[in-house]
Amino acid sequence: MTPLEKLEQLGIKLHQPPKPLGAYVPAVRTGNIVYTAGQLPLDSDGKLVTRGKVPSQVSLEGAKNAARVCVINALSAVLTQVDSFDSIVRIVRLNVFVNCESNFTDQALVANGVSELLGEIFGSAGGHTRCAIGASSLPLDAPVELDIIAEVK
Amino acid sequence: MTPLEKLEQLGIKLHQPPKPLGAYVPAVRTGNIVYTAGQLPLDSDGKLVTRGKVPSQVSLEGAKNAARVCVINALSAVLTQVDSFDSIVRIVRLNVFVNCESNFTDQALVANGVSELLGEIFGSAGGHTRCAIGASSLPLDAPVELDIIAEVK
Amino acid sequence: MTPLEKLEQLGIKLHQPPKPLGAYVPAVRTGNIVYTAGQLPLDSDGKLVTRGKVPSQVSLEGAKNAARVCVINALSAVLTQVDSFDSIVRIVRLNVFVNCESNFTDQALVANGVSELLGEIFGSAGGHTRCAIGASSLPLDAPVELDIIAEVK
Repeated sequence: MTPLEKLEQLGIKLHQPPKPLGAYVPAVRTGNIVYTAGQLPLDSDGKLVTRGKVPSQVSLEGAKNAARVCVINALSAVLTQVDSFDSIVRIVRLNVFVNCESNFTDQALVANGVSELLGEIFGSAGGHTRCAIGASSLPLDAPVELDIIAEVK
Repeated sequence: MTPLEKLEQLGIKLHQPPKPLGAYVPAVRTGNIVYTAGQLPLDSDGKLVTRGKVPSQVSLEGAKNAARVCVINALSAVLTQVDSFDSIVRIVRLNVFVNCESNFTDQALVANGVSELLGEIFGSAGGHTRCAIGASSLPLDAPVELDIIAEVK
Repeated sequence: MTPLEKLEQLGIKLHQPPKPLGAYVPAVRTGNIVYTAGQLPLDSDGKLVTRGKVPSQVSLEGAKNAARVCVINALSAVLTQVDSFDSIVRIVRLNVFVNCESNFTDQALVANGVSELLGEIFGSAGGHTRCAIGASSLPLDAPVELDIIAEVK
């Protein structure tokens, strides 16, 4: 199955990426690399699906779900720079910032759902590097902000 | 107008980038990409223009101004790697870390002035991706740290 | 001396990079660039050499030592993507996140040992850009997380 077929099998629909929160763009291509902007868990109406710090205001499960929304937004952003989803050759990098209490140490668990999803969609081409970091706060009080660097053709 | 002419019209003077805080360099070029080091709001004497957390010690306006100092330092750093400012083809990425209280959620507003300035200088080539993140603390207690990835020729 | 000879002179032994904390990989190569995943100060048994926040639970010296463990892990990760350590042409970027109290402002000092080590190993090719950032928390309560972008041949 191609990545696009896998997306469809998983029932994931890409859409217009969320409107940036300022004078920047959802994604930029330079050579064969696409950088996305940091994505928040905004739904297709531009509203946060959840808000607050992990785990006091947003549970671990809630944060994992939010991260999944972010990565779908990030893939939608990559799609603005290529002809087809199947032009994505490889996910190179995933940066995940978790808006969390200072004693929260499960940033990796928040990110794991996203890493697994990338593996499901892209197979070995989804085998990315990752940084997962605790942030003391994030824009709009989002629980997660995430960006991708992808190699494309 | 070229980016250099626009810089001059805006009255922005580039200078030697601030001395790094350790054994690293202000910018590195690899292929057509220039990475800058994280820039603090240091003036041409190497002193912070402002210091402390947003918004308790540094106001939103103060942080926006500090971010503007950072980006001028970042553009000065890029300039060390190219023959001329007009060799900058595109701003690919802007990362903005804001040293802020844990209930501050306007990181995007701190970064917006910088994003708008890049748009003014570079036109559509200034249409960058961006991450804005809250940091619990930053080197020297700077209110903002910012770095750029630029495509150059 | 080549970088590999310098490593040997310094008594640094590279090893298998630590097992990732999720479904990602230690390093990805795209073109002539290798990105490593964020590295924690894990020893060869996969255990943190130290744990907690700087400076209340981990001293500045302890954090510098942890950062050194991280960078050896990062270089081990780069090595998975090249034939030989001498294929590393340049260290382009070092990102250092320090798990610290909100009034800690010496992130640069934590990172300096690593920057100096890269200079010792690679000479002028070790002259990298760097971001040093305070994080409110990190995975597994590690005191430092660090990643590298390297140019390779």
